[in-house]
Amino acid sequence: MQVVAYTGSEPQPGMRALAVEAPVNLVYGSVPHAVMMATPADLEDFAYGFSLTEGIIETADEIRATRVEAGADGLRLHVELAPGRLREHLARKRAISGRTGCGVCGIEDLAELPRAEMRDAPNVRVALPAIAKALDGLDAAQVLSAETRAVHAAAWARLDGTLVAVREDVGRHNALDKLIGALMRAGTDTAGGFLVITSRCSFEMVEKAARLGAAVIVAISAPTSLALERARAHGITLCAIARADTLTVFTGAERLAPGG
Amino acid sequence: MQVVAYTGSEPQPGMRALAVEAPVNLVYGSVPHAVMMATPADLEDFAYGFSLTEGIIETADEIRATRVEAGADGLRLHVELAPGRLREHLARKRAISGRTGCGVCGIEDLAELPRAEMRDAPNVRVALPAIAKALDGLDAAQVLSAETRAVHAAAWARLDGTLVAVREDVGRHNALDKLIGALMRAGTDTAGGFLVITSRCSFEMVEKAARLGAAVIVAISAPTSLALERARAHGITLCAIARADTLTVFTGAERLAPGG
Repeated sequence: MQVVAYTGSEPQPGMRALAVEAPVNLVYGSVPHAVMMATPADLEDFAYGFSLTEGIIETADEIRATRVEAGADGLRLHVELAPGRLREHLARKRAISGRTGCGVCGIEDLAELPRAEMRDAPNVRVALPAIAKALDGLDAAQVLSAETRAVHAAAWARLDGTLVAVREDVGRHNALDKLIGALMRAGTDTAGGFLVITSRCSFEMVEKAARLGAAVIVAISAPTSLALERARAHGITLCAIARADTLTVFTGAERLAPGG
Repeated sequence: MQVVAYTGSEPQPGMRALAVEAPVNLVYGSVPHAVMMATPADLEDFAYGFSLTEGIIETADEIRATRVEAGADGLRLHVELAPGRLREHLARKRAISGRTGCGVCGIEDLAELPRAEMRDAPNVRVALPAIAKALDGLDAAQVLSAETRAVHAAAWARLDGTLVAVREDVGRHNALDKLIGALMRAGTDTAGGFLVITSRCSFEMVEKAARLGAAVIVAISAPTSLALERARAHGITLCAIARADTLTVFTGAERLAPGG
């Protein structure tokens, strides 16, 4: 789009790409469930990841199909669940009608705060050069971010630092849900790699990583107090403020190996 | 807290401050309304700003008192409304039981998407040197960010670039709600200044600015497509990717004056 760019006091007409943000309504079995503001790309991955991290499904094969429908007021992302799952989902939804949305937002009362059940965190060891390699690769792989400077990325790296999948979104929770969905659909073994996120590491990011079964999170920005508390509870290694040659380990340092 | 810092492959024990993130349950008239993950500071400001931007109140005097109560599972932020407002709030809450939380998250259906009603955007002109001065001041004023690198800030600057108020939070929506609450409580005239935010400018940030009655938003990071659309609809000037000597104007360039 057309913008006016100032360098010093000189106005210059210019062009800039904007990150597209659209309301995406997740619909299970024709019942609208939640509206998320998201980048309208990789929505099939989003359907899988969101459904897992929201506790609606446990495995990828519980989703039969997904379909995106464009409407005047946003996108509808229809998720067709296995019949048993759909019944469970609708029964739970009736029971907790105030509880919708992206984890914390949308809950009315402290007693409803989500707590992911941890799968056993895999016994992974990650070498520092592999983290440096993954960060380096991620820099180049953030296509949308390079254009718009308004999106977050979540990536999965193999233990040698090779990136397997990268997903971007205007929302950091969505970026991680999309990545998780992509890994579920590909059947990726979470014992064989680690998670890299470009954003701050808040409580919900750790809960989502726990649902995925990731043992190591590398965040480019800093974690919050509750994120650290949850990482400890789940036995997840949390590294943050990751740069080419520096890294701060907040918990679980035993999983990191200095050398190659 | 104790961390392990790597520079190259050398582990060094070190200390780092973490941004505290706590569940804050907003309670109106003894009825829990929404749980927000927030930095537990300036909660009285938060109560005012959240109540305004969520459409629960229209003016500061509709809040009679606020009180913070610490519990085992988080904080309860009690907001005592004027009796008429409380009745209206509870009646509306019953009518739209799925709709809680921070604007978009928590809504179930696209038809419920919020649209702030715009007050007339004040006829403000901002000089570029004033924006540079505000950005410069904000850098120094982000006390929590300097310690933790995990929080956002929202600030209000007078037309000459002097900062009037700065609020920080792990959530960018909360930072802005806290700032808005502080301005409401101080009776600040929004025709006399502009808004500066350190975070990305998403749709909800523009809606909150519209509720405040701000005419100019300066964001350090980039806006999304829907943020721009809403800024145009509200007649708000949106500048972003703001640095010491560069600024990109996405809409409303007529409010900016090059010189001092």
